[in-house]
This record gives sequence, C-alpha cells and structure tokens, in this order.
Amino acid sequence: MIIILKPNATKPQIEFLRDELSGRGLTIQDIQGETTCMLGLAGDTSMLSEDSLIRHEFVERVMKVSEPYKLAGRRFHPQDSSYEVAGRKIGGGAFTVMAGPCSVENEAQVLSIARDVKHSGADFFRGGAFKPRSSPYSFQGLGLDGLELLKIAREKTGLPIVTEIMSQEYLDVFRADVDIIQIGARNMQNFPLLMEVGKIGKPVLLKRGLSSTIDEMLMAADYILMGGDTPVILCERGIRTFETSTRNTLDLSAIPVIKKKSHLPVVVDPSHGTGYWDLVYPMALAATAAGADGLMIEVHNQPDKALCDGQQSITPFLFDRLMRNVRKLRTAVTEEA
Amino acid sequence: MIIILKPNATKPQIEFLRDELSGRGLTIQDIQGETTCMLGLAGDTSMLSEDSLIRHEFVERVMKVSEPYKLAGRRFHPQDSSYEVAGRKIGGGAFTVMAGPCSVENEAQVLSIARDVKHSGADFFRGGAFKPRSSPYSFQGLGLDGLELLKIAREKTGLPIVTEIMSQEYLDVFRADVDIIQIGARNMQNFPLLMEVGKIGKPVLLKRGLSSTIDEMLMAADYILMGGDTPVILCERGIRTFETSTRNTLDLSAIPVIKKKSHLPVVVDPSHGTGYWDLVYPMALAATAAGADGLMIEVHNQPDKALCDGQQSITPFLFDRLMRNVRKLRTAVTEEA
Amino acid sequence: MIIILKPNATKPQIEFLRDELSGRGLTIQDIQGETTCMLGLAGDTSMLSEDSLIRHEFVERVMKVSEPYKLAGRRFHPQDSSYEVAGRKIGGGAFTVMAGPCSVENEAQVLSIARDVKHSGADFFRGGAFKPRSSPYSFQGLGLDGLELLKIAREKTGLPIVTEIMSQEYLDVFRADVDIIQIGARNMQNFPLLMEVGKIGKPVLLKRGLSSTIDEMLMAADYILMGGDTPVILCERGIRTFETSTRNTLDLSAIPVIKKKSHLPVVVDPSHGTGYWDLVYPMALAATAAGADGLMIEVHNQPDKALCDGQQSITPFLFDRLMRNVRKLRTAVTEEA
Amino acid sequence: MIIILKPNATKPQIEFLRDELSGRGLTIQDIQGETTCMLGLAGDTSMLSEDSLIRHEFVERVMKVSEPYKLAGRRFHPQDSSYEVAGRKIGGGAFTVMAGPCSVENEAQVLSIARDVKHSGADFFRGGAFKPRSSPYSFQGLGLDGLELLKIAREKTGLPIVTEIMSQEYLDVFRADVDIIQIGARNMQNFPLLMEVGKIGKPVLLKRGLSSTIDEMLMAADYILMGGDTPVILCERGIRTFETSTRNTLDLSAIPVIKKKSHLPVVVDPSHGTGYWDLVYPMALAATAAGADGLMIEVHNQPDKALCDGQQSITPFLFDRLMRNVRKLRTAVTEEA
Repeated sequence: MIIILKPNATKPQIEFLRDELSGRGLTIQDIQGETTCMLGLAGDTSMLSEDSLIRHEFVERVMKVSEPYKLAGRRFHPQDSSYEVAGRKIGGGAFTVMAGPCSVENEAQVLSIARDVKHSGADFFRGGAFKPRSSPYSFQGLGLDGLELLKIAREKTGLPIVTEIMSQEYLDVFRADVDIIQIGARNMQNFPLLMEVGKIGKPVLLKRGLSSTIDEMLMAADYILMGGDTPVILCERGIRTFETSTRNTLDLSAIPVIKKKSHLPVVVDPSHGTGYWDLVYPMALAATAAGADGLMIEVHNQPDKALCDGQQSITPFLFDRLMRNVRKLRTAVTEEA
Repeated sequence: MIIILKPNATKPQIEFLRDELSGRGLTIQDIQGETTCMLGLAGDTSMLSEDSLIRHEFVERVMKVSEPYKLAGRRFHPQDSSYEVAGRKIGGGAFTVMAGPCSVENEAQVLSIARDVKHSGADFFRGGAFKPRSSPYSFQGLGLDGLELLKIAREKTGLPIVTEIMSQEYLDVFRADVDIIQIGARNMQNFPLLMEVGKIGKPVLLKRGLSSTIDEMLMAADYILMGGDTPVILCERGIRTFETSTRNTLDLSAIPVIKKKSHLPVVVDPSHGTGYWDLVYPMALAATAAGADGLMIEVHNQPDKALCDGQQSITPFLFDRLMRNVRKLRTAVTEEA
Repeated sequence: MIIILKPNATKPQIEFLRDELSGRGLTIQDIQGETTCMLGLAGDTSMLSEDSLIRHEFVERVMKVSEPYKLAGRRFHPQDSSYEVAGRKIGGGAFTVMAGPCSVENEAQVLSIARDVKHSGADFFRGGAFKPRSSPYSFQGLGLDGLELLKIAREKTGLPIVTEIMSQEYLDVFRADVDIIQIGARNMQNFPLLMEVGKIGKPVLLKRGLSSTIDEMLMAADYILMGGDTPVILCERGIRTFETSTRNTLDLSAIPVIKKKSHLPVVVDPSHGTGYWDLVYPMALAATAAGADGLMIEVHNQPDKALCDGQQSITPFLFDRLMRNVRKLRTAVTEEA
Repeated sequence: MIIILKPNATKPQIEFLRDELSGRGLTIQDIQGETTCMLGLAGDTSMLSEDSLIRHEFVERVMKVSEPYKLAGRRFHPQDSSYEVAGRKIGGGAFTVMAGPCSVENEAQVLSIARDVKHSGADFFRGGAFKPRSSPYSFQGLGLDGLELLKIAREKTGLPIVTEIMSQEYLDVFRADVDIIQIGARNMQNFPLLMEVGKIGKPVLLKRGLSSTIDEMLMAADYILMGGDTPVILCERGIRTFETSTRNTLDLSAIPVIKKKSHLPVVVDPSHGTGYWDLVYPMALAATAAGADGLMIEVHNQPDKALCDGQQSITPFLFDRLMRNVRKLRTAVTEEA
C-alpha cells in the first residue's frame, strides 16, 4: 500500500502517521515522487482501512498494490483448479456444457429438453425452480415442485443438475438434491448467502453481478472459499452498459482476465449475456474461442410458449448444431495452442 | 402492448397469433405504421410474456406501453404518500434527516454521535450493525451487539433508529427493535427478502441498486408493497458509471423522475453517493434543492479512526453547518415554489 | 411512430394534434391500449420531430417504430455489401486482416513490421501518422512525415495502407495517398468530417465511439453514405463501461447485432478493445468465431520501446501464431455453418 | 510514477530497467511492498510512456501518481480563475446564466426569446447555428445564416452570444462574431479543433463528452490552454449511463470535484443533462446549490414547435420563475458558507 501525501503535509503530521503505522507492525518507507511525498508500507495491510487513512487531512490518496482477493487468486494457487462433479470433470482442460430451460414448467417439458440436450452432448442439465424476476407480476418459478421435476429429469437421463438458490432457507434441500448450486447475478453480493453456501461443500456456480467488476467477483468467490473446500465455478453472463440492442453486454474479455487473475474455471452464459436467441450461437462460439471452460445455454423445445425468457432460448435443433461446431472449434484451436 | 411484425409476416402467421391472443381475452387492433404492420393489444397484458411473443419468427419487436410497476406508481395513487414513523412525519412536505456512523463501533462512539446529530436537528439515528462489504477481509459489523448499541442510543437520545437488514433470519429481531428497516443497494433485488420484509408492517427504506434503473427500483418497491400496508421510502445513493473521481455517480435527477412516476417519498444518501466527505456538503444541498424528501448522512466523530467508510463521513461540526444551510435553502426555495 | 397520450388528454387536444399531423400528410389511427389512448402514424415521419411532439402537455411518450438509419440498414439493402479495395476483397465472406504499429515511428520500424505482418498473411498495413491522444503531453504522431513512411512501406511490401484522418484539412492528401481512410472512435460523431470523407469516394473504416450505441454508429455511417458510393467498413473497438481490468469492454455481440441490422462489413480491433497485449490473441479468435469480417491488430517489433500503446501491441511472432489459428478456426467453423 | 514488478522479476531484469530509467535522468528508488517489489521514479516522467513500461515481461503494473493535466489543474494555479467577457464577470464568485433556444430558427423566434431571457436576468444569449445531430435526417441548423440572426439578437438586446463551432473552417467567422465559442460534447476530444480554438484568444465553453471522465475533460482544457491565454469555462452536461428515464445522467458531483482539481469556472446545462423540460427546473436549482458558477438553459417560446430539442426546452415563463429562485437560493446559501 502506498500513501500519497499532500504537498503541504507537515513534518509533525507525517511523523504522527508514521508512528501510528509502525504501531501496527508495518514497515514504512519514504518515497520521493516527481512532485509528491509518499509512504510505502510493507507487512500485512489487509486489516488497514484505506478509508480512514485517506481521511487524514494531509493524505491525498491511497493506492493499493496487492489484489483485494486471496483464495480465488493465482498468487498463492498458481495452477488451474479442476473438479470432478458427478463424474464430470470441470476445469483443467475439460469443456463443460450446462443446458436446459430458463425455468422448469412441467414434467413433459423438462424430460423432452433434458433428453435432447443430453443427446447433443450436454454434461449438465440446468433449469430454474426459483426464479428471480425484476417484476413481481412475472412468473416466479415452481419452487420446490420445480426441484422435484429436475430430480426426475436427472433420474431419467443421468444428467446431473444445476439450479439457482435464492434464499438460505432452502440450503438443506439444495445440499441434498442438487449437483451444482447456482448463485445468480443479483445475489453475487448477497454475503450471508455466499458464506452459508460455502460451508456445505457442494459445488457452486457463481454468476457475475450485472455491475460487478471482475475483482468484486473474485472477492465474492473468496466469501465462498473461506467456508472450506468448495469447488467454485465462475460464470460471465453480461454486464449492464448503455447499449440497448442487447439485454446485457457480454464481456468475453473477462475470460482471459479471470484466467490471469484466478485459478478458478470460468464458463459463459450467452443466453442472459445477450438476451436474444439468434445471438446465442455466435457468442457461444466466441466464448469457446476466447478460452472459456464451458458454456451455460438456455434451450427450450417451444420457445414461443416459454413462461420465461423465451426470446433468449434456442431450440434443441440449434443447440445440436452449436455443440457440433463448438467441438470442431475446440479441436482446431487447441491443437496447437 | 404493441407487437411489431416483420415485413415478411404472412397472413396465416398473423391470424394464428391473433387467435392465440384473443383466446387470452385480449382485444387486438391492426395498426399500419410507416413501413410496418403492428398489432395493438387492449386488456390485461400483465400475464403475457413479451419474451415468448418476440420468439415468434415473424415478430420483430414488442413494445410495452404501460409502466411495469403498479403499487408504487402514481397511476392508481396520484397523491404523495406520507407516513408517521415514531412521531416523525416522512414525505408530504416534511424533510427528514437520518444521520449517524457508517457502522456501530462501541457505546461511546454511538452515544457521542447520536447526541451530536440530535443536537443539530437530525430526525433519525442511522448506523450499521450488519455490514455488507465487498471484501471478506473488511470489518463486517458487530451484528446483534451493534443492534443493542443502537437501542441504547435510542433510549438515551430519543432518536428512532434506521439500520440495515441483510438476511431474513433476523426479521423478528428487526421487527421488534428497529424503527425503519433499511434494504441496502446490494439487496434491492433480493426478492425473498423484499417479500418477507413487506409482510411485517415496519417502515422500509429501500436503497437503489448500483446498476438498477428507476423502473426496477419501483418494481422492487412493488415486491414490498404487495405484502400489505408497509410504508416504503426510496433512497437514491449513486449508480455505477465509468467515472472514477467519485465512488458512485449520484443521480440527483432520480428525485424529480421518481416524483413523476411514484407517490413514494425519496431521500438521498450523498455519503455513499459520492464516497468522499468533502463532496457530501455540496451534494446534500443539491439534493435538497432538487426536491428530495430528506437526507441520509454518515457522521463520525473520528473519521480518521472509523472502522468503515471513514473517507465519506463528515464530522458533527460540518454536519451542524450542513443542517443550518439545508434549512435556509428550504426556506428560500419553497417559499414561492 | 406511435404517440401515447396522457390519461387526462381532452378530446379537443387530441383533435388539435390529429389536425396538425394530417396537415403533414400523415395517416392517423386510434389505438386503444390497456389503460391508455394512442395514435399510430403512417407515412413519412422522418421529418417529424419527436422532441416537439412530446412537448405537448397531453402527450406522455413517443415511440419510434422504424430504425433511425436508412442507407446502412438492411431494410432497403438486404444483401451483404462487399468491396474490392486495392485488389483485396472486403466483406461478402472474405476475411480481412489489417495489422501494424499503433503509430509510425521511423522507416526501419515501419518496414520491419510491414514485412513481418505481410509474411504472416495480413492484407493491409495499418499505422498512425496523426494520433489522437487524451493527453497533450503524449506523443502526437509524425503527421505528414508519418504518411510518407507508410507510403514507403506500401511501395516495398505491396500492402495497401489504412491510417486515421483527424481533420478535414488533410482530406486531399488522404485521398491521394491512403487506401482506406480511418475515422477514429473520438471522431465517430464529427459530422462535418464524416460528410466530407463521404464525398471523396475512398473506402472508409469507421470506428465505433467509446459510448456510441450500434444505432448511432449506423447513423454515422449514413452520414458518410449520403455522400455517394463510398465503401464503409465498421469497426468494433470496445466501449466504455465501469470495468477497469480492461481499457475498454470489447462488445463482440456487436458483430451479430450489426449483421442483423446492416449490410456493411464489420471488423474488430481487439488491441484497443482490451488494452493489453495478452488479451489480444484470445479476443481476436473470439471475434473471428463470432462472425467478424476481419481484424485490426496492433503489431510492434519492440513493444517495450513503442512510443504509443506498447502495452496493447503484440509481437510479429505472436501475430504469426494468431494468423495461423484464425485460419484454422475459420476453416473449422465455416465448413458447415 | 511507481512501477510494480512481478514476483518472478530477476535481478538482471531489474538492473536493466533501472539503467534505462537512469539514462533518462530519473531518480529510482526501491520500494518493498507487502508481497511485491516496486520502483519509485522521481523527476520529469511526463515523457515516459507507461504503455511501454508495462510491456516489459517482468513489470506487473504502472501507477501514475501525478494528475495527468497541468494547466487546468490547481497545483500550479491554486486560486480560482475568473474572466471578464463582454463586460460580464465569469467565475470568481459571479453566477453566469446563458439561455436561449437549442437552435436558431428565424428572426422573430430569436428576438422574442432573447428579449425574454434578458428581461429575466440572463447574462448571455445562447443558440445553435451549427447543430451536431446523431441522425443525418434531423434538422442540421441554419449555419452562417443562423450566426447572422444571433448577431441581430445581440445588437437588439445587448446580450453577448455563445454558440457552438463544429469545424475549424469557420474559426475566423467565430473569432469575429461570437463572444464565447462553445465546443460541444461530441467534440471534446476533437484535438485539432481544441488546439486551433486555443490560439485565437476568444473565451471557450468546453462541454464534457458523453463518456469522458473529469480528468479527460481537464486534459482537453489543457489542449486549449496550451495555445495561450484563453479563458476556458467548463460545462457539465450529463454523461451516458444505463439509466433510460433521462437522456443523460447529469453528474452534479462533477462540480465540487472540478473545484477541487481545477481553477477553471464550471457551469451546468440541465437541459441536455436531463433531456426533459420538467427536470430542468429542479436540476438547475440543484446545480446552483452544488456550487456551479452558472447555468446554460434552453428556452423556447413555442417548445412544441421547436425544430430541435423541444422536449428539453422550458418556456420564458418558467425560466423567469427559475431565475428568481436561483437568486433566492444563492442568497440563502452563500450568506454564511
């Protein structure tokens, strides 16, 4: 951490600060900048509040040098993390596809889509039982009944299931019934939920918040990882920008940025990321080319009848074509990389 | 709702859609645009998923005409809402100031600040017991112990208290102990929490999410208002933009926009909205001039020692000066308005 | 165009507006919404100012149905545009790579890089002679001397050249010397420049503004296209968002969105789009997979000595590897698409 | 400037960099961070390209300590700047109001509005002759004929005039005819125009770009100030964000931020900043309360017939009321401040 002092900082003020910082066990070093004086701090500054430092009248700015996340970062965990979940490998060179409807509607729908996506090569079946909706007048999901339908789909197809938790009160149910617990974008900074989910040991898919930076996503992952040895998979799903042609702006550069900063696997959801079914195919290929560890795709057998997000769901037919091209692309690009 | 058809939509396709919509009890009207055909729908379209409509191959776009919120909107509730909370009026011409430290630290701190802000004319004492922090390595608040300190402050000063709830598990405690329950920006779309809070009848202060539109904030208010007769106060606290000179961009135009759309009172938090103590004073005056129904201000007796957000807290001395000028400004501007 | 009236609009007010609009040759149709009255307008509304319409006290909102661009749009030009520039095909299934240094520095540098990128398969040589820099204290480019160096590079390698124009005063020089004239992001809405460039008939590469929507980029293209039969190539180069891990957020979904809306070819600049050399390779592959018609890549033989944007330039060695993988990827993905 | 080295940087690499930097006359200091090594540079680093520094494989990050602007900054010019323009004081405690129509339409309109705003106390008459419009199909302004009408308005009312320049080709005309030359938001980074305008000595009103940070605005001001002794007035006019209820998001915190960083006066344009006439009044008061040095307001005598931006123009009647309340507010707030 570097503290930049104001030009008019007095000697006694600087001495006062120096004493305070030494008292906390930090080593302080004077730095002479172009036109400014600075103090460089060595030691454990993680408990030091930069908020308060900057409140000293004679301090102009405080610059953090270390990254703000630890467990999710590469510094102390340089090699890629990979997990085995329900017999499927995630991360570490594997490519994992999670596919299924936005929301679980009924048994026929769920089974039909689950069979289709399995046939095309999906590794996991996704579907929403609890649905976070901006409007209280929209369909809110089937809740626990939806979870039962997902379990039937798993039983009949063998595909493990991914579904979103919205509240701590269902943690026990999710622990018992779900293969990967999804934390949605709106809950990325629901810290009590993150901490509780991190304690039960089930794999977690953590979606990036609509206006969260990558560093904030990695700090959110740290909240989960502090609970123990939980496999965490990150998911880029679009951020909020001024552009209105798409529902969100899918930030594919997040993939290589996360790969630099973190050892966690990262998958991409082009369905929410774009909001339109005809953008899903090109953006899924793009995410694959950019080095994602997998995809999460909304597939619906009757998109024009879907109770939720029909406009961003692709048909099983298009999903099948997508899967074939994703495989070709990966073969072509990873051959030599 | 207006459905814009693609130029190549065929007669049978249009007939098919028309039948489907009539079957749901809607009246359909043909509209001939400049270069496009459209269908205008009259009747209750709130259960109609525009997502699915747009999924029809021959539909180009769907435009919503009605606003997406109901209970928070002015359409069926044209007059301003106002409440009486712990003997203080909120909304309806009153001006309400909530002030106190970012987080509750100890009894001496809490009492000192509470007395100071009361002396300067604050109506409510605010202070965080449960603190949502981006980093798991930052101070997380005193929790229930903090709540006890707030109660002591209330007992000693008579100021009612506002504090943030982060999880449903503490709903009973908050119902018993707190005068206004705050929903923080990160929980603005924590829908289970909104629904539960709306059922207990306590006044709620709902903060705008970092990347939430005003319409989304009003839909979030609807989630609370559906629970019954809960007083809801909205709070503008800055949105996330590209500008880095401030922590957030305080969107003061939200005040008159909310006043047009909604009957709910709106207060402004310039402390989080700007992130720097020396911007709090001018922006508090600006919010007052823009027509806010009140302010929420972080005040700390030793900002350079604060465990949280010291850089955005003002001293009791500056708060006192602020209160005096806010009063003068209101007298000057509302005289003739 | 659809005009939504306020609930309290009176009959005489509506009649008044109806007469005014009929007087402009428009056909007006009443539409009954769920809770609102609307007027639908058919005819040429392009000269109608929605700004003024909404100023009527009894008008609540005006919704445009037609897209705001014409010449760049697919409505009247459904097939893809393609051009032949200096013997190279652009658009229409071709894949065009423009590569070279951010700024032209000296003859040795220019020749070395031009030869390298030609060897690896680049179609055009790019390099900045006039450099728009946020800071007046940064290197501003060699100007006309830089243009001369580009011409030497073209003569020695045969690669046609792309370079940015910043001011109308050099239009004659650019017309004479340059193969593709680049309009930079900061000038995307420099309307006098767009109109003048559109009159000289040279191909134009139009970069998306940092905070421009896709619709605004297409309107900017219309400014150029109004001048005559100018080949226009669009370039996605990142937009400004809240994320700070990258210089800009490369919006790859712009590729399929532009392909839906417009017939113009679109290339992607991952160098400016990300700002970091190690993100260029994955994002270039991703852009290719998403369906871009080409790439613009900054290549420098000594990135750590570059006078400009060294941190986002890749070496000729990495460029070579990129080109090989781009070709493989295209073969794999387009085979069956 | 501080250079943060990667953990695996070798001694010879560090020595190499140290030599290179010493060779440029800089003093280098080792800094030991928590977990990282850094180099602190003292001396003139303004010519040092951080882009290239970061390109060294063993460099992790480069942090600038000095602000990127000079002439516009307070460091070497601590006291507020103020100017006398056509007998009116701008800055230094004065409050300057510029009012008039978005675009000049005809003599009757111009004279009527000019007289009205003068009567209400405006200091300058503003009106657009050259209009930058996103769409080429919108009214583009009367050009030189519009300038003539502005001159007539000045002659008849005595109000000096402010109008926007869009292209260098009209610099001579503007120098001769205009009192304050406006650089619009879209041209804030049109560097050749900034440099030329800075050379002619006329006062310049520089509007903030839609997606420009405050630091970038101050660097743009430096481009003008490098030309000589030109009075520069900054103008906040809203930035582009995700919020769609307003045309832009008016960033009023820019006022106190600019006051901290710069000695230049700053005025606010709530008309473009919000895009809706009924938001202009509250936001103009708010800007005044936040400490702006003045306002720029669009006033139209027949807003529902305006050729441009009618929806954001207020009537002379409302403008008059606004002026009275602005004066009251200033009296109330500045009395004691």
